[in-house]
Amino acid sequence: MSHSQSWFQHEGIEVSLTQDPRPKSPVEDLTFGAEYSDHMLLVNWTKIDGWDTPKIVPYGNLSLSPALSALHYSTECFEGMKAFKGVDGRVRLFRPMENMKRLGRSAVAASLPEFDKEGFLECIKDLVRVDRDWVPQPTETIKHPSLYIRPTFIGTEPFLGVREPHNSLLYCITSPVGPYFKTGTFQPVSLYADPAFIRAWPGGVGESKMGGNYGPTIRIQRIAEAKGYTQVLWLFGENHELTEVGTMNIFVHWINEDGDPEIATPPLSGTILPGVTRLSLLELAATWGSHKVVERTITMDDVRKAVKENRLKEMFGAGTACVVCPVAKIAFLDEHLTIPTMESGAEVAQRCLKELTDIQVCITTVLHF
Amino acid sequence: MSHSQSWFQHEGIEVSLTQDPRPKSPVEDLTFGAEYSDHMLLVNWTKIDGWDTPKIVPYGNLSLSPALSALHYSTECFEGMKAFKGVDGRVRLFRPMENMKRLGRSAVAASLPEFDKEGFLECIKDLVRVDRDWVPQPTETIKHPSLYIRPTFIGTEPFLGVREPHNSLLYCITSPVGPYFKTGTFQPVSLYADPAFIRAWPGGVGESKMGGNYGPTIRIQRIAEAKGYTQVLWLFGENHELTEVGTMNIFVHWINEDGDPEIATPPLSGTILPGVTRLSLLELAATWGSHKVVERTITMDDVRKAVKENRLKEMFGAGTACVVCPVAKIAFLDEHLTIPTMESGAEVAQRCLKELTDIQVCITTVLHF
Repeated sequence: MSHSQSWFQHEGIEVSLTQDPRPKSPVEDLTFGAEYSDHMLLVNWTKIDGWDTPKIVPYGNLSLSPALSALHYSTECFEGMKAFKGVDGRVRLFRPMENMKRLGRSAVAASLPEFDKEGFLECIKDLVRVDRDWVPQPTETIKHPSLYIRPTFIGTEPFLGVREPHNSLLYCITSPVGPYFKTGTFQPVSLYADPAFIRAWPGGVGESKMGGNYGPTIRIQRIAEAKGYTQVLWLFGENHELTEVGTMNIFVHWINEDGDPEIATPPLSGTILPGVTRLSLLELAATWGSHKVVERTITMDDVRKAVKENRLKEMFGAGTACVVCPVAKIAFLDEHLTIPTMESGAEVAQRCLKELTDIQVCITTVLHF
Repeated sequence: MSHSQSWFQHEGIEVSLTQDPRPKSPVEDLTFGAEYSDHMLLVNWTKIDGWDTPKIVPYGNLSLSPALSALHYSTECFEGMKAFKGVDGRVRLFRPMENMKRLGRSAVAASLPEFDKEGFLECIKDLVRVDRDWVPQPTETIKHPSLYIRPTFIGTEPFLGVREPHNSLLYCITSPVGPYFKTGTFQPVSLYADPAFIRAWPGGVGESKMGGNYGPTIRIQRIAEAKGYTQVLWLFGENHELTEVGTMNIFVHWINEDGDPEIATPPLSGTILPGVTRLSLLELAATWGSHKVVERTITMDDVRKAVKENRLKEMFGAGTACVVCPVAKIAFLDEHLTIPTMESGAEVAQRCLKELTDIQVCITTVLHF
């Protein structure tokens, strides 16, 4: 292993291998985020001493104070990224520096310390190297399994005053995963949109991947499920602007009001997570030349009108866990809108999925062993 | 000890005493939330088996999964309450069922399970009984020290899907405390009010005591401190309505536009924490008969106008940690408003503090041993 210089001494990373490797589930049995690899990465920081030596240790429980800042004040943020095993057997990460940069921004919002993004990524690569046998191999039926990588950053000071933590722990766990949605990746979902529930707001932290943006959404997700819907469509403002769907960004493919084929997603106004999949799909689709590709405000009125005028072709969520997730219907107040994503052949959604996953297993950062 | 029946078997509480009691700091050296008592209370819950037997065990670290729901998605909430030692040497809790009820509401918002509020309170009383020597005795100079009680509820399932935790831990730690603010309880604070920063939003969870409401405020508090102010005054909406101050509710004492002396605090609209101190001060002041006591929207325009017309007498924060905290000035955009709380003799703030602390040490729930 060659290591870049870093201010938390990545070159000195300490690796302690498990003496008790666990059995791996067959790729067919993998779900999302329920099973963990044999090792984890830990890097402690204190205000007094700065960053400690990064350590790769056997996966296991952490010894944490019951007064832990993260458990009381949610001084915590995380990332979600994936390692893929290609048909060539090599392991690849997809745009991992995008995740490191976003984690850095989330850490600022969570009052956690600055960290060396390149150095931490080198440590994560070492972790994936150590657990390379946990990166699942694609099969005929499970085409895109992956090792889900969860960098996490928590305030660990045992102090009940509401202040920036003087101790923190930057860590990473990994989990071999199959498809995110129980129904499989390309089953269309139904959305429940109730403007009474707001995920994020201007002047808040909706663009950060902080734990506090997720916990409150679970109750609303359960309300949606109880009403028979798969996911929540998050709206904002008097005009009921579409913002996110579940934990994903949202895209529409429609013929716009000028009669042009367009792929659109809401702009990053501060209330929307700047997804790496979102960014990648915007960049990918722009290369096609077949559609206008835009970041624009999309209201429920826009959606309703486009459905009525048969201009709406597709709607889909986009995120690391699911990649692309087609939408079939939306319940909005007393309305039930049918979204013809599958009837339209899900042409753009399919193409996004195929091109993105091809890139993920063929042409991104290869891990050398 | 006598125990009420409860559905997590409070009557069977298991107590394991420390073999290594720690030395206690003199009451003069106590700060806020930095020192913990010898024991803690733990009650585990699983979706399959329900509530486990409550356990009082020596205070110490918890063994928690790095995939813990609370550390990733902030499925966590807490309470803050106090036990006081009166001049009669007896230990009292102040309106503890109010905290239990609020914890129950926060738990719903955090998708944590319902719990037996009376039963959990009985367990907390047992914890305070076990650590009764940690409840500090008032002295000539430190008149209102207390044992700060921190009930905490976290999702403990090691699962990375965003869903309601199938395991959780309801626990309680306690901490002997002196005054919350470094400067002492009745030193006036200066407030920094920037409408660019929004603590809570309608349709969100601002009225819940969830960790995720606190973490993001730390950065703004540091901005305020860097500009030389003590606390953040949280505004909301186009009219710059006052909502909270730091982690406290806010009160004004003024001559209202009808010429009547009035004590006012913003109404519980969903974005404001329903404080137990807030409620108690509203109830107390209503008994005086000397002031109108109202919950009403208070805008920065209202404050500015009242200052200009010499109608504003006092402004103060109110919360469990600080009790009452007078305000001396507000920086709002380019304005610097002088709030004459101290110049007015802080008459209402002083009376609130005295009457509330008198009640806390004399006439509330006594713990029997």
